[in-house]
Amino acid sequence: MTREAHTELCQSEVGVAILGMGTVGTEVVRLLNEHGDSFTHRIGAPVVIRGIAVRDTSRDRGVDPSLITDDAQALVDRPDVDVVVEVIGGIEGSRQLLLSALKQGKSVVTANKALVAAHAAELAAAADESQVDLYFEAAVAGAIPIIGPLKRSMAGDEIQRVMGIVNGTTNFILSAMDETGADYAETLAEAGRLGYAEADPTADVEGFDAASKAAILSTLAFHSRVTANDVYREGITKITQQDIKSARKLNCTIKLLAVCERIISEDGSQSVSARVYPALVPLTHQLATVNGAFNAVFLEAESAGQIMFYGPGAGGAPTASAVLGDLVAASRNVVHGGRAPGDNTYANLPIAEFGDVQTRYLVNMHVVDEKGTLSKVAEVFANHDISIATVHQDDVVENEDGTNIDPDGKFARLAVVTHRASEANLAACVESLGNSESVVKVTSVLRMEGQDN
Amino acid sequence: MTREAHTELCQSEVGVAILGMGTVGTEVVRLLNEHGDSFTHRIGAPVVIRGIAVRDTSRDRGVDPSLITDDAQALVDRPDVDVVVEVIGGIEGSRQLLLSALKQGKSVVTANKALVAAHAAELAAAADESQVDLYFEAAVAGAIPIIGPLKRSMAGDEIQRVMGIVNGTTNFILSAMDETGADYAETLAEAGRLGYAEADPTADVEGFDAASKAAILSTLAFHSRVTANDVYREGITKITQQDIKSARKLNCTIKLLAVCERIISEDGSQSVSARVYPALVPLTHQLATVNGAFNAVFLEAESAGQIMFYGPGAGGAPTASAVLGDLVAASRNVVHGGRAPGDNTYANLPIAEFGDVQTRYLVNMHVVDEKGTLSKVAEVFANHDISIATVHQDDVVENEDGTNIDPDGKFARLAVVTHRASEANLAACVESLGNSESVVKVTSVLRMEGQDN
Repeated sequence: MTREAHTELCQSEVGVAILGMGTVGTEVVRLLNEHGDSFTHRIGAPVVIRGIAVRDTSRDRGVDPSLITDDAQALVDRPDVDVVVEVIGGIEGSRQLLLSALKQGKSVVTANKALVAAHAAELAAAADESQVDLYFEAAVAGAIPIIGPLKRSMAGDEIQRVMGIVNGTTNFILSAMDETGADYAETLAEAGRLGYAEADPTADVEGFDAASKAAILSTLAFHSRVTANDVYREGITKITQQDIKSARKLNCTIKLLAVCERIISEDGSQSVSARVYPALVPLTHQLATVNGAFNAVFLEAESAGQIMFYGPGAGGAPTASAVLGDLVAASRNVVHGGRAPGDNTYANLPIAEFGDVQTRYLVNMHVVDEKGTLSKVAEVFANHDISIATVHQDDVVENEDGTNIDPDGKFARLAVVTHRASEANLAACVESLGNSESVVKVTSVLRMEGQDN
Repeated sequence: MTREAHTELCQSEVGVAILGMGTVGTEVVRLLNEHGDSFTHRIGAPVVIRGIAVRDTSRDRGVDPSLITDDAQALVDRPDVDVVVEVIGGIEGSRQLLLSALKQGKSVVTANKALVAAHAAELAAAADESQVDLYFEAAVAGAIPIIGPLKRSMAGDEIQRVMGIVNGTTNFILSAMDETGADYAETLAEAGRLGYAEADPTADVEGFDAASKAAILSTLAFHSRVTANDVYREGITKITQQDIKSARKLNCTIKLLAVCERIISEDGSQSVSARVYPALVPLTHQLATVNGAFNAVFLEAESAGQIMFYGPGAGGAPTASAVLGDLVAASRNVVHGGRAPGDNTYANLPIAEFGDVQTRYLVNMHVVDEKGTLSKVAEVFANHDISIATVHQDDVVENEDGTNIDPDGKFARLAVVTHRASEANLAACVESLGNSESVVKVTSVLRMEGQDN
């Protein structure tokens, strides 16, 4: 059934199915009940909850029990449901339910970043086929409006780069490590105690969550299909206090960034790079001021210049705010006709080879403290076509636990900052450094973002 | 002619009239020509410029001369024009042209804040009547998406407060005064030399420009009609280095803020306060990091919490970016049907009496340096029901030019920070202080925003 056939039946009210009643779902239902009159005014017709699908129907959830069902598919199939709100999570079950809803001519609002990052093409095609809406503002950066602005406000501009702090857990951990001097494991445990990290923190700390968001942001920013699998990904589990101190010496802080970049090669051909890794950010950059569990998305566009969006990136109420904004938009279209712009992928840019991606690097190493070391190390960089920006040498070489590993004064610590170089060249350079007699050990390699050249 | 009748004629392309070819208009035309293919993909049909209305048709503008006309009305009236883009400025002429366009069933994109702030109700009614779109993203904070997010992304939330740095000229001046220690007049002159202030800076430095933006933001945030005349307004012309130093002592900076607030009185009734004034902002607040000619809009909503939008607030290219984003949206609706949400004013909240508005204050004064002065001053505040938060006393009393006005050590400088109090009580208190024998002079009163209680 298409939108036109569908809306004729139900313009006097908008029927909504809520799939899931966890933290976000509960808040969505509460706000719909509490601010019902406002929603009616904003939409032009009342929103009516037809049902709420949950796994465990026996729990008292403080809502009319007749609304609760464990048959999500039957709820989606109800002819009086116009919009389906999915706040369950998971991929396969939600995918089936939402595809079914879209095929039946019902609009979808979802907060499910993993689903959108993996299956946006299939979902968008189903929405196009039925001429209905697929909204997912809550999938990236919680309450911060970023999907809408990318689709609409920036639609007249050419975006060059999007850099996001899009995972609150890792930003909390990195901010806390910076503030307290505690190590990663200790800070992760504290984040767990405070409710900022889940019992299994893998999705956050290994960057999978941020990679989903990078895929979604890249798709919208560059009008090209990018999935989570296309995103290069490193987590924060190897970040040490030495890394943070070395960043501070360079007037930088370390953030887990989702970097989405339009790459224009010398022959003018374009490609998309999407990557997630901990990176040095200058303290003077707007992103450096984003601390704790906050999120921010910083974008650079040809005409607009540099714009940043900042706010709470997670939590029941902020996520519910984004879901409800989408629900108002979807409901308005049910009542008044029209469709939101989809994720237009006309540009169809290829994904750049990660080896071709260029950025700046900080290479930390322990070297042999003798005459000629610096020139030998510099030669290795030069041999790999990498230009050095700055070098800091430091005599004391300590382990992470503070023990001096060099009581005889034979070693030094060297921190080399490069100009922009390709990942391929950098990787080869690091391998050569490992084979150099002057280098005891490359202790860490960190990218630097937020600076040119 | 309604949208339905209109679109049947012209779905294969979207005809656009550009009114005005100043900095912004030139950039809009250039980008439309340069990125035409992208626009076609994003809209679903090509955008075709039907004509460009200018005052002086004799100048070579680097575009097809057959497009140039000095008859804006005739251009608007052309049957093959679907969308009118107004980047002329001024109020009355633009108002007539845009009303005429809307009445003919043509959508409007305007960057004209003064027009929207003064005549939004009339323009919105005409757009509603013809079921077409009225877009004005570029009217507030240049390229920063704020109108779209307020209308759409935040449509499921209850906004409590919007605080904006929405005038680049005044922010540049205040930032420069803070950095250089130069006085207002000197800094204004420098801003003029650098192109950040116009020859007649009145609209900027007296807060008129910011007041227009406050009216627009308040209307959208609180679903209530607010015009520029409803906005309480103070400019920055009286800000001295003493004010800036007194702010620094309190770990604050001074910003010209547009504050839009939902006021809930004790009986539960609501009203809207919109005001523009220089205010102290804590250095720890996100808005304090917004320097130079940048703009930012900070909002607090019931569910979303605190969100900030940051970016360039003016300039040809950023403003063109916002105009073109609106043009894409309006053109999509011409091609695909549907309408953007208007400025829904259902809540219809009254404007709060300025005397009832509450905030915190910094009252700077010169007092007689003798026993009992502090208690007498404190008594004046207490008599007006104003609770004091902190007091700083300082012996040296200098004029702005650095001359000591108190060689005999009879005077002291007193900086009193209050808790939240009403404007009416504060005004009465300041009058009483002026009459107190202990007070030589109240040298300045500054509001403090960005802190509770």
